[in-house]
Amino acid sequence: MAIEYTEEHDMFRQSLRKFYEKEVLPYYAEWEKERQIPRSIWKSYGSQGFLCPWLPEKYGGADLGFEYSVIAIEEMSRADVGIPFSLHSNIIVPYIEALGNEEQKERWLPGCASGDILTAIGMTEPDAGSDLAGIKTTAVKDGDDYIINGQKVFITNGWDSDLVIVACKTGNNEKPHRNMSLIVVETGTPGYTKSEPLRKMGRHTEGTVELFFEDCRVPQKNLLGEEGKGFYYLMDKLQQERIVSALGSLLAAEKMFNEGLAYSKERVAFGQKIGSFQANSFKLAEMATEIEIARTFLEDLISDHVAGKKIPAARVSMAKWWISEMANRVAYHSLQLFGGYGYMEEYPISKHYQNVRVETIFAGSTEIMKTIIAKDLGL
Amino acid sequence: MAIEYTEEHDMFRQSLRKFYEKEVLPYYAEWEKERQIPRSIWKSYGSQGFLCPWLPEKYGGADLGFEYSVIAIEEMSRADVGIPFSLHSNIIVPYIEALGNEEQKERWLPGCASGDILTAIGMTEPDAGSDLAGIKTTAVKDGDDYIINGQKVFITNGWDSDLVIVACKTGNNEKPHRNMSLIVVETGTPGYTKSEPLRKMGRHTEGTVELFFEDCRVPQKNLLGEEGKGFYYLMDKLQQERIVSALGSLLAAEKMFNEGLAYSKERVAFGQKIGSFQANSFKLAEMATEIEIARTFLEDLISDHVAGKKIPAARVSMAKWWISEMANRVAYHSLQLFGGYGYMEEYPISKHYQNVRVETIFAGSTEIMKTIIAKDLGL
Amino acid sequence: MAIEYTEEHDMFRQSLRKFYEKEVLPYYAEWEKERQIPRSIWKSYGSQGFLCPWLPEKYGGADLGFEYSVIAIEEMSRADVGIPFSLHSNIIVPYIEALGNEEQKERWLPGCASGDILTAIGMTEPDAGSDLAGIKTTAVKDGDDYIINGQKVFITNGWDSDLVIVACKTGNNEKPHRNMSLIVVETGTPGYTKSEPLRKMGRHTEGTVELFFEDCRVPQKNLLGEEGKGFYYLMDKLQQERIVSALGSLLAAEKMFNEGLAYSKERVAFGQKIGSFQANSFKLAEMATEIEIARTFLEDLISDHVAGKKIPAARVSMAKWWISEMANRVAYHSLQLFGGYGYMEEYPISKHYQNVRVETIFAGSTEIMKTIIAKDLGL
Amino acid sequence: MAIEYTEEHDMFRQSLRKFYEKEVLPYYAEWEKERQIPRSIWKSYGSQGFLCPWLPEKYGGADLGFEYSVIAIEEMSRADVGIPFSLHSNIIVPYIEALGNEEQKERWLPGCASGDILTAIGMTEPDAGSDLAGIKTTAVKDGDDYIINGQKVFITNGWDSDLVIVACKTGNNEKPHRNMSLIVVETGTPGYTKSEPLRKMGRHTEGTVELFFEDCRVPQKNLLGEEGKGFYYLMDKLQQERIVSALGSLLAAEKMFNEGLAYSKERVAFGQKIGSFQANSFKLAEMATEIEIARTFLEDLISDHVAGKKIPAARVSMAKWWISEMANRVAYHSLQLFGGYGYMEEYPISKHYQNVRVETIFAGSTEIMKTIIAKDLGL
Repeated sequence: MAIEYTEEHDMFRQSLRKFYEKEVLPYYAEWEKERQIPRSIWKSYGSQGFLCPWLPEKYGGADLGFEYSVIAIEEMSRADVGIPFSLHSNIIVPYIEALGNEEQKERWLPGCASGDILTAIGMTEPDAGSDLAGIKTTAVKDGDDYIINGQKVFITNGWDSDLVIVACKTGNNEKPHRNMSLIVVETGTPGYTKSEPLRKMGRHTEGTVELFFEDCRVPQKNLLGEEGKGFYYLMDKLQQERIVSALGSLLAAEKMFNEGLAYSKERVAFGQKIGSFQANSFKLAEMATEIEIARTFLEDLISDHVAGKKIPAARVSMAKWWISEMANRVAYHSLQLFGGYGYMEEYPISKHYQNVRVETIFAGSTEIMKTIIAKDLGL
Repeated sequence: MAIEYTEEHDMFRQSLRKFYEKEVLPYYAEWEKERQIPRSIWKSYGSQGFLCPWLPEKYGGADLGFEYSVIAIEEMSRADVGIPFSLHSNIIVPYIEALGNEEQKERWLPGCASGDILTAIGMTEPDAGSDLAGIKTTAVKDGDDYIINGQKVFITNGWDSDLVIVACKTGNNEKPHRNMSLIVVETGTPGYTKSEPLRKMGRHTEGTVELFFEDCRVPQKNLLGEEGKGFYYLMDKLQQERIVSALGSLLAAEKMFNEGLAYSKERVAFGQKIGSFQANSFKLAEMATEIEIARTFLEDLISDHVAGKKIPAARVSMAKWWISEMANRVAYHSLQLFGGYGYMEEYPISKHYQNVRVETIFAGSTEIMKTIIAKDLGL
Repeated sequence: MAIEYTEEHDMFRQSLRKFYEKEVLPYYAEWEKERQIPRSIWKSYGSQGFLCPWLPEKYGGADLGFEYSVIAIEEMSRADVGIPFSLHSNIIVPYIEALGNEEQKERWLPGCASGDILTAIGMTEPDAGSDLAGIKTTAVKDGDDYIINGQKVFITNGWDSDLVIVACKTGNNEKPHRNMSLIVVETGTPGYTKSEPLRKMGRHTEGTVELFFEDCRVPQKNLLGEEGKGFYYLMDKLQQERIVSALGSLLAAEKMFNEGLAYSKERVAFGQKIGSFQANSFKLAEMATEIEIARTFLEDLISDHVAGKKIPAARVSMAKWWISEMANRVAYHSLQLFGGYGYMEEYPISKHYQNVRVETIFAGSTEIMKTIIAKDLGL
Repeated sequence: MAIEYTEEHDMFRQSLRKFYEKEVLPYYAEWEKERQIPRSIWKSYGSQGFLCPWLPEKYGGADLGFEYSVIAIEEMSRADVGIPFSLHSNIIVPYIEALGNEEQKERWLPGCASGDILTAIGMTEPDAGSDLAGIKTTAVKDGDDYIINGQKVFITNGWDSDLVIVACKTGNNEKPHRNMSLIVVETGTPGYTKSEPLRKMGRHTEGTVELFFEDCRVPQKNLLGEEGKGFYYLMDKLQQERIVSALGSLLAAEKMFNEGLAYSKERVAFGQKIGSFQANSFKLAEMATEIEIARTFLEDLISDHVAGKKIPAARVSMAKWWISEMANRVAYHSLQLFGGYGYMEEYPISKHYQNVRVETIFAGSTEIMKTIIAKDLGL
């Protein structure tokens, strides 16, 4: 890693490792079966300073750099569990911190850091996934309120969330990029309901739901930032989301590669380790190469991000699509090394294969990423 | 299809279609949840002449050609369900018919045709998957019996099976290809037990289990064919198994392609059908091409097989590996077209994506197929 | 081959083989260096009945089926030379036979069959390659003549050709598909000139040139078929051109594969034949598979074509793009097996690698083929 | 670039640029046709301090860092010419500098820096390419001399070279890695002859020849380093050779990508710029991504190399194979964008396509690179 890690970073990492070992791993299989993470684990994680460590101290954070978020993501991957800590800490809370006024920050951020307020963001709609500008949820002013109508889908952490940032149309449709606003809706608000968690191929503990807004009345003071600028806010924050997402893909690829490598050194067929068959060893060499190249590229981006440099959107898009596609190739070939065992739930590679499939889709699909890059090339 | 279909073929197909519509589809979701197919459905399927239609009439069959098996496989794919009818009819029962003596045939075949006797075959072991000659299960003669010790794994339909053909070592290990024998073990035989159905990534209704043999005493009259020739019997029968397997991959690819095509004509993003984006339409054109080429190739093989021609092992291996890999590419790209919906259990593509992953592994992995082809090339 | 070959086919093939051995191969290296084929070889080839064997006897042909053209193409590939016999026989002369009136047929066809009249076709223009409807060459009526102005490029066999069929705009531009006509221009006509042969990456003996028309006056009786229908004529005839082109790609792939296979059985490195390294043997197995699948598919198309069945344009397009891309993959991987020798002119693989690159471009590029298929899918 | 460039670097670059513009480009087409570079150009290049700028001043160099070599390589790529300056400066002369004794250094290095002594290295043999340990050329001691017998092939710059470093067997064959030595042979030595330049697919100005040694008597003082350590010397120096080679591939990829990008913004078909077709724009986005990732990875390696850090052999091998394969993909897809023009010698992409093909072969083939990586993975 281009980042120079200090002893403090290591201590942070060790604490996280201990947290997973003691508080999560003994119970995780059970939670996964129930497809539900207990609220208490968020509180414990937050109380140890792991939620939003980058927040200013006055809001309950520790004013730490983005590299601490990287460490937290790495340790969750190492523990091989899926709890939407990073989504909350690195993707959603940053909206409140960046766009919120003082009153909003004081109201929400301390709870976000302690684990008392869990968050989600509502962008995607049944008829608008990649095409963010095409959303139909509306927020119409009425007195001091907005009245929200519409529906959101694929809302990770939605099930447990206490507040959701909702992308709404607040103007007419003529300039779709200029009439979107971000409004915070708290669970319990009349007219706001959630579906049961959606059944997915994998990632069963993410509490992904649909959200429904029927004449849902929300005070205008819940508006984040300026009215009409929501689309630009989203575009801006998607950069960090995509870096985080690419990091998730990279860590998944490394984990799956290591599983396949270890198995290929241990499994015997035709009287020799399967890793000694050249077709397998070359496949592993190819995976190792692509992972190494991806890591170097992503660390370069992350170093710049930690240093506060502006990273070109095209470069982030390159990391996002290429690494998520690469991780799926690694999943495919690594599973193949396991033969029939790779298809059994008992073997982690099976779960990882299913988990990684969505990474070329969420946070900006491969197709959207290529569109951004092509535009940047002047095409 | 190079085969000329007659009205009788069509009637057979229509009856199958009705069977699935009336007797299977209304209940299938429930069965899938329970991961268990009721025995009664086998009886019903058998009573209508769908099990082993190729068997001679004296054993309960209808003396029909392999093309009827093809029709039955196609109709199950069309119904989009997974019941190991074809495994039983086209892969396992043929061993009994080809290798059994008259007494054995009379004892087992009528039940196989009626659905009273369900079958499985035990080749793979925990330490011998692709490397069939490396199995360790032994059958030692003792009086008129064999005493079997060992373990089998990944036994499809094992859970419901009433008899299993077990590949055993019956000689010393010096010439591993010449000391394997096939022995029928019936459920209920002391010393023969099964695991619970294994938890897999997909294909939850196949009743895949492990088998355990502990001093399991089986009469020698349960030997199929000659002692010591098991390896050659397996090699011989694997040809039809691989054709059937390649057909399964092809039908899966066609189904997934059609799902993706239909969705891409209906889903709108950025104001246009997503199928009208050139990157998507080219991807669909590529899938259509590979499917068409695969179908032509496989039909050529099947026509020869129906006509009783000997098909070179290398050619069957080509179909097996290329089509199963192609089906996985189609799965990947077709799912991508669905965006987030592709990851939801509710959408069939999600299940098909999981089902198809094992097809490059079972019935001879891609690596084994390439080894066979390379040997045929003189390498 | 699905076609049943008779003794007559074999005799035809043997005569061709002898022709190449005696009349071409001893001189070919010299011709290739001069980038020029002597006219006399066309006459000899024609006098033996190899040019346009499908033509009716009254025009100098032998009324033979398309399978004779296939044999002729196969034998040229076997001889490993490049003379535009097939372009003339199978792609250009068919226009005259199909569209010409009796007077035209009598004037030109006997010479086409004897080798006295060599032909070319002018479709592509500097600004209109794939986009055939976008051509700008015009033919304006003046008295009994057309006056042609414009330019054509990449005209294979143009250098030696005695007549060229020129696609011209004969109407206004409003309906570009309905104002194109095919007009025969004979070498020597004032206002019609040719460039020197173009320098290309490979295929140096094809006499590829540019054609220039400056107030070139041609009698209207040189119009082929009806005025304004040229675009449809071209679309129709492109089917056979693409089949012929796909066959060329397939034969090239087979030749390059065989070169690589032979070399890998003979070349030793690290004490073993390089073909015995699994990464190489698997690569060869993959190539063998794709070639076998392609051959089966193309033979299916050719059988239908020989039988006079109408083949869907999408199916021909599938063969064209997939086989030409596959041939380039085979070129790449086969050359790699040769190591440094693969890069030396002395080794045929080097030339074949260069020759095959254009096959994904001419006769309808891969992109055009996919567009046709996508349209056929309703996209 | 991670390296911080100063004004001095820029001046060096500007001088190189001027050199190519004035002294090379006006004549290069002629040299390419003759497949011969004039000696005088080496002298001019050397006199301006461009040859071996890294050499200590006492040997005629300027004691500059490896980044100056990078600049020189970049400027040659920019000029789009092929003269083996970099091979001489960065790959061969380093052997003399690192292994030579003082007498040898004083004898040869000043001429190497001035352009009076041109160099080559003889590793590959007709029967030993990738398998370096398998060479058969012998050097047998006789009095104060070695008598060399054997043959070398694919010797770049061999035609113009004044001295060649020859890898010879100097011991028996039992431990092939420990009986190889490097011996300098000067042009004109009796028994040492060269072939005419080999005819290759591309790179026609590199003066690639075969070398023949027939009882060639060379004084033992021409031994470089210690006897018997040649294999390890070669392994060690191959690291820098592979970095240089990967840089060449990357620069070629960037150049070809830029050609394709520029053409796709200018060429019109079907009424629009071809770069605006999504299939093309996505292809360009994919190439841009892989190039960017490759550049970041290689710059990371080069920075470490400039800083004198030891780079793991596996990491260098990753760069070598992945970037050279990527450059060939870029060549293929970029040429496709040009349609028929891509196949014409007149368009640079045609030449670049041919030049780049050998990059997966020389300096350690892709297969050798994967073998090194696999070994590093413990396979």
